This record gives sequence, structure tokens and C-alpha cells, in this order.
Amino acid sequence: MHPFDAAMRLETSATGRFSGRTTVAYANMIGPFGGITSALMLHAVMRHPDRAGAPVALTVNYAAAVADGEFEIHASPCRTNRSTQHWNVRLQQGADVQVTATAVLAQRRQSWSATESSSLPNELQRPEDLPRLSMPGLPAWVDRYDLRFLEGGPENVPHPGHSGSVTRLWVRDDPPRPATFESIASMADCFFPRVFLRLGRMLPAGTVSMTTYFHAEAAVLQAQADRYLYGVARGLEFRNGFFDQVAEIWSDDAQLLARSHQLVYYKA
Amino acid sequence: MHPFDAAMRLETSATGRFSGRTTVAYANMIGPFGGITSALMLHAVMRHPDRAGAPVALTVNYAAAVADGEFEIHASPCRTNRSTQHWNVRLQQGADVQVTATAVLAQRRQSWSATESSSLPNELQRPEDLPRLSMPGLPAWVDRYDLRFLEGGPENVPHPGHSGSVTRLWVRDDPPRPATFESIASMADCFFPRVFLRLGRMLPAGTVSMTTYFHAEAAVLQAQADRYLYGVARGLEFRNGFFDQVAEIWSDDAQLLARSHQLVYYKA
Repeated sequence: MHPFDAAMRLETSATGRFSGRTTVAYANMIGPFGGITSALMLHAVMRHPDRAGAPVALTVNYAAAVADGEFEIHASPCRTNRSTQHWNVRLQQGADVQVTATAVLAQRRQSWSATESSSLPNELQRPEDLPRLSMPGLPAWVDRYDLRFLEGGPENVPHPGHSGSVTRLWVRDDPPRPATFESIASMADCFFPRVFLRLGRMLPAGTVSMTTYFHAEAAVLQAQADRYLYGVARGLEFRNGFFDQVAEIWSDDAQLLARSHQLVYYKA
Repeated sequence: MHPFDAAMRLETSATGRFSGRTTVAYANMIGPFGGITSALMLHAVMRHPDRAGAPVALTVNYAAAVADGEFEIHASPCRTNRSTQHWNVRLQQGADVQVTATAVLAQRRQSWSATESSSLPNELQRPEDLPRLSMPGLPAWVDRYDLRFLEGGPENVPHPGHSGSVTRLWVRDDPPRPATFESIASMADCFFPRVFLRLGRMLPAGTVSMTTYFHAEAAVLQAQADRYLYGVARGLEFRNGFFDQVAEIWSDDAQLLARSHQLVYYKA
């Protein structure tokens, strides 16, 4: 079983009530990687028998660090319309709520479409021509991604003086795995906190809320299969302990799969 | 009483349980303006006796149109940490959930801060030198804002062929009212759906989810008082019935007060 699918394993204990446990493969410095938690909140919805449609919006609030070990996820639809469905999700350990989420699912129809804002350059160095990130001392989850930096990699972090915080990279699950909504939800969090790039050092930082909009349908993800995806992230406003950053995940044929925003706590 | 404060009126029926009613001043084409609903979800949190801190993140999911008339809002803290607090909020009419929301509050400390991404031009025409929007046939809420367009106003909508969907404007409550977190939450939705600009016509469209990050503290809002705010909005990815747009609200002395993202349904 792929480590991502092992991390997504949920046992149904009642309708909309799932139990799971953290896996060492996606461990972060404290508790699991935020991306895998985001994917799990969505996965509970995807597994629910009343699910109608595919995800278009997902907001995950990291209320407290998930402790290594068992957890329970409760997912309930609070409104089902003709073409959209709204969900509430929470992750608990005992009586404590560690994570809350809301999700919107939809049945889409083909219509006029356009990419107005594109961060895609015309020419991109291919992942095969770039070295894979290999750095000692990083948390386990980093090794679950094959990361090849075009700009703004962690080797820039010990070199302060960056005026910007852009990272551009190729990313693929390791081992390679076909893209799903859950894997994209997780990948959208694969960019380290932008404040590290701005200040040229690591410092205490953690996501407090993350919203991902899915612009791809299932067929687009299927067509992408397990090939490298292009990702870009940038910090926007850093203000008294909180900053926001945007991340985009693109297919290798220049379709935007997801755009994600997060608000991150930092202690500078 | 200012019409905004009249729209925010909530009676406490039990701890965290509030009743209110829609007001004609903020009526949209169907039900109330989405911005006023976003502000109400936040206001319930701000009114709660257990509130600790000021808002940093707010996600509002528009599950169904709010009908004109009475509603109930339930707000409950699901986690209170040393410096952050997480909330769940829902708006019901009878047994039906029309709106859900999550909010994160925080106690901030002064720290290194920076504006990396700025949409602010160096020179801005002053609001006094621009005409106020005056157009027959718009819903009531539009008159609750003094809107002065620098770019991308509704007069551009009947003229198709725009390749972009940027709107830049000055905005102020009408009558003028000191800025609060709630008024900023509402203003962040004052930009009409970006797809109107792209296609040069009005079409069915409605916000399904909206996330606002607050970068200002209460003291910054107080200093702004009731002066004009600068706003900018842009559509990003339009794809098979859903698009995302970003909006920013700036103080008149070039501080970013809030950045907001929404996912909007459209039928083209």
C-alpha cells in the first residue's frame, strides 16, 4: 500500500464517524504534516455514503497540534442542494477538537472557462534536469515528496536578504502515485512557511487556517496520472505574528488544479 | 442607528445563540447581501461572552440563500489556546442551515512585519475627484456603500472584450461609519462577480465560500475612522461553473486591512 493511502486509512465506526491513526511516514516536527491532515478531513467526506459531487472548496482550521496516535473524524453534510453540498468536519482526540473543516462539493457542467491569473512561465526547466531536494534533518513527510526546486528552495534559507518569498518547484509523491483530490489537498501544503525565506532562517511558525479551491475535475486529475506537478508559492502580507501565503498546483500541461491560501502564525 | 448597526442587531436567546432579522437596507436581489451575512457570522463571535482576541481568519460558506425575515445564529468556541481561539458558527432559519462559518481569533504581538505583495499604485486619484456610482436598478445594499471607481466599474459591464477583471475603487459606508472588523468583513464582498467584467454581461452567479484574513488590529481600524478605504479585486481562474476572486481592502495610508478570497458559482 502506498504510504499516502496508508495515511488515509479510516475505519467507519458509524455513519460519518471514522477512526484513524497518524503514520510515521508523514510525521512533522510535532504531530503529522498539515497537508496530510487537510487530506484526511477531505477524505472523510469522500468516504461518506451521502457524498454528492466533487470538492470545489475546503477550509481546514488547525486548532491544536494532532498528537501522534489515534484520532476520530466526524463528517456531516449540513446542506445538499441540486448541484452543491456543504459539509462540516472535525477531528478529535478524546474530547479535544484538534482540527475543524468545512467543504463544498459540486457537480460541475462544462462552460466558458479562462485562466486570468497565471504564474506559469513559458519555459520551464524539466524536473529530470534538476536535483531532488536532499537535506538532512528535515521531518519525515518531506521525503514523501520528490521536490525539485526552480527557485526559492531551502538552500536559500540560511542566506538572508531575500526581498521576496517565491518558491517554484516540481513535486511528485514518492513513490509516484496518481493524483487525487486528497493528494492535491496535501501537496498544496508542501511549501515551507514563506517567512523562512524572507528572514533567512527557521523560526516558530504554523498554519492556523488553510483554504483550497479545486479547479480540476476528476477526469483532469486522472489524465495527470502520477507525473510531476508544478507548484508555486508566495508570501503576501506579514503582520504582527500572522502572514498569508498563496500556493498553486498546476498540471504538467499548464492547467491549474488548485489554488490554496493559508494564514500562518510566526514568532519573529 | 446606522443601517449597518441595525443590520448587526442580534438578541441573545442563550449563550452563543442569537436571533436577528434581515434588513431592507442590505437587501440583495434574493435575500441579503453576502457581505452583511459574513459580517453577522463574525458579529455573533464578537458578541459572545467567551471571546478572546480579535479576528484573523473568517470563512463563510453560503449553503443556501437566506430568506428575508428572522434567523438564528449559533456561535461556539471549539478550542481556546493561549493566543488563538477557534469558532464554529451557523445561521439557521427553522431547521435549515443556510450559512456555516469558522473563525480564528488571536492575540497579536508586535513583530517583524512586511508587505510583500502590494496592489497599491504610487499615485491614486482622490475619491473627491471621482464620481460616486449611481445606477438605477441595482439592489439596495449597493446604496449602503459610497463607491468611486478608478477602474473596472459596472459601466464596463455592457462592453465585452475585457481580457482582465480588475476593479479598483474607493469605498465608504453610507452614511460614513468608523471601520470595524465586521464592516471590513462586509466590504470585502462589495465587488460584483468578476465574471460580469470578463463576459461583459450580468449572469447568474453567487458566492459559495469566502475566506477573509484580517491583517489589521483594532487600533489600526480605529485610526482609519470613517475615511474612504481603497479596494481592489480580480478574478483568477474561471473553470466550468466556478471561479475564484481575490479582494483587498487598504487603509487610506497604505496599510492592508484585509485580504479576502471567494469561490463563486456562475452559469455562463
